[in-house]
Amino acid sequence: MFETIEWTAAGTVRLLDQTRLPAEEVYVECRDIAAVAHAIRSMQIRGAPAIGVAGAMGVALAAQSIRAASFEEFYAELSRHGEALRRTRPTAVNLGWAIDRMQRYAEQHNALPSHELVDALIQEAQRIREEDIRDNRAIGAYGRELIPDGASVLTHCNAGALATAGYGTALGVIRAAHAAGTRLSVLAGETRPFLQGARLTAWELQQDNIPVTLITDNMAGHLMQRGKIDLVIVGADRIARNGDVANKIGTYTLAVLAQAHALPFYVAAPLSTLDLSLHDGEAIPIEERDPEEVTAWAGVRTAPVGVRARNPVFDMTPHRYITALITNRGVVRPPFDSGLTALTDPDFLNKV
Amino acid sequence: MFETIEWTAAGTVRLLDQTRLPAEEVYVECRDIAAVAHAIRSMQIRGAPAIGVAGAMGVALAAQSIRAASFEEFYAELSRHGEALRRTRPTAVNLGWAIDRMQRYAEQHNALPSHELVDALIQEAQRIREEDIRDNRAIGAYGRELIPDGASVLTHCNAGALATAGYGTALGVIRAAHAAGTRLSVLAGETRPFLQGARLTAWELQQDNIPVTLITDNMAGHLMQRGKIDLVIVGADRIARNGDVANKIGTYTLAVLAQAHALPFYVAAPLSTLDLSLHDGEAIPIEERDPEEVTAWAGVRTAPVGVRARNPVFDMTPHRYITALITNRGVVRPPFDSGLTALTDPDFLNKV
Repeated sequence: MFETIEWTAAGTVRLLDQTRLPAEEVYVECRDIAAVAHAIRSMQIRGAPAIGVAGAMGVALAAQSIRAASFEEFYAELSRHGEALRRTRPTAVNLGWAIDRMQRYAEQHNALPSHELVDALIQEAQRIREEDIRDNRAIGAYGRELIPDGASVLTHCNAGALATAGYGTALGVIRAAHAAGTRLSVLAGETRPFLQGARLTAWELQQDNIPVTLITDNMAGHLMQRGKIDLVIVGADRIARNGDVANKIGTYTLAVLAQAHALPFYVAAPLSTLDLSLHDGEAIPIEERDPEEVTAWAGVRTAPVGVRARNPVFDMTPHRYITALITNRGVVRPPFDSGLTALTDPDFLNKV
Repeated sequence: MFETIEWTAAGTVRLLDQTRLPAEEVYVECRDIAAVAHAIRSMQIRGAPAIGVAGAMGVALAAQSIRAASFEEFYAELSRHGEALRRTRPTAVNLGWAIDRMQRYAEQHNALPSHELVDALIQEAQRIREEDIRDNRAIGAYGRELIPDGASVLTHCNAGALATAGYGTALGVIRAAHAAGTRLSVLAGETRPFLQGARLTAWELQQDNIPVTLITDNMAGHLMQRGKIDLVIVGADRIARNGDVANKIGTYTLAVLAQAHALPFYVAAPLSTLDLSLHDGEAIPIEERDPEEVTAWAGVRTAPVGVRARNPVFDMTPHRYITALITNRGVVRPPFDSGLTALTDPDFLNKV
């Protein structure tokens, strides 16, 4: 079994290079925060919860390297590193959430001797990783009851073990249902341009012997029309207070299609994906990446030289298309605003 | 300027190999009907009207090669060849339409000496090609008025000069509007798995200096939501009597999205694409091709070895999603049944 990301005994961060999958299972070892930033930017690691964990571990790597005469100096340096890391990818809120949490943790332990503070920060990063796996198992336990026996489940992109510290969000629900004996089959949308569905979701489900069939993204409507899809379940990169969801480009299209075919559309995500500072999804920044990701594949051009291309890599699904949010504290149905507020107890609210 | 398909002075069929575009502009010369069948099956030539022309020219090649003692013997042999060619691709009706027309033409000229009959069939095949170009120009002339100045037009797959004998259907409308001075920009969906949008439409529009921007198929919903698309225009592989349209996989998804965003959705096609034998689109055969087209690109696998994949290459858009059909005899609006019947005068009806 693979590990998406872990802290090593040598004080480094080891992560599975997802750009090489499914052809090769190669691990990258990051010795400093710059290497983690590169891994996030180049999508060696991706998925909102996974880049949250990477962000925390990146901050821990930075903490190890800082030589400072005072806590104030240490903290200023740590924040500087954190800000640079935060800018690597704009849409997923988990990255900023994890960096904030690490910085707040440092502040709360400012009285510790520096080597103890560094150790404590390393432990906090590992705790964020462990909590993420625990949260995903909770999402799975809550969500599995939404999957009827015999269901054909469409998912998009990769919201699996590879997108998280382990187990997955959308794929966590699928894993939990499968483990509970629910017969199901998964349709994985390939997810152009980066092909996370083809390269990652198909690979991950194959490893777990969960039946999976790959489709191109543009087949979803046809298969819904022909009755071949019973429900859709996806992950999230950021959820606004009203339940609007930013997720991989193509998610919104699937939500519109699901509604047109009266199919349930579920979003599975830990509460760390919630951005209570945003009333709705309009203000969520949508990252636009290099058009080269659209015009070439594996070094072979798929389009003529010089052609313009767009590459927004996320989109925003308004809450009215979402049947339920499956979180680590339970399933939330509309109205999401009050439902999410109820789930986020003061303890959680203090953390965001 | 390229030629999609033409009859050569040497008595062969020369066609642009569309599997090599946009990297290379290579022509294939077909000396017999088997070579034409291979070109259609392997998608060296594709697009409903273009494979109609290829079908007619394939029959003409067969006619050239037949050595028969009587017309009956000649016709039996011609029909045998025609049936084999017809089976190469099931969804587009134009292929069968053109083969039928060639056979009927032979029957109508059964009194001719054999060398004159062969010459007449070669001329009929060339006439089908010329009529197709003429029809596309008529589609363009009728359709261009539907494109408002400044429009951002989404198209799918390639319904251009490459999909026809020349000029194109959906791209014919765009060409005609552009030539008439309408300012417009085209968004081309890349059209997985075969990438006709990326490889062919982008290339074709680039050659004509019509502004084109490539997107992945799953971006359409997002761009509609953000107000970046004003209308959708696509081609067709088969149109039923009630206006249901079979076209490239992904068309139906775009139609659902267009309706959800209150955008016009136009289908441009010659009347040779109409199948009056079908009341609705339910019975249109949807071709399913090799899953390898989904799991690999340019010889590089995009999915793990052993993963299942689906590859339906067309879908069916119910007429209720279609704003208007743009034909070579005018624009037809709902109800399509009576509108199409009115357009198809007895002369046309005799031909189908």
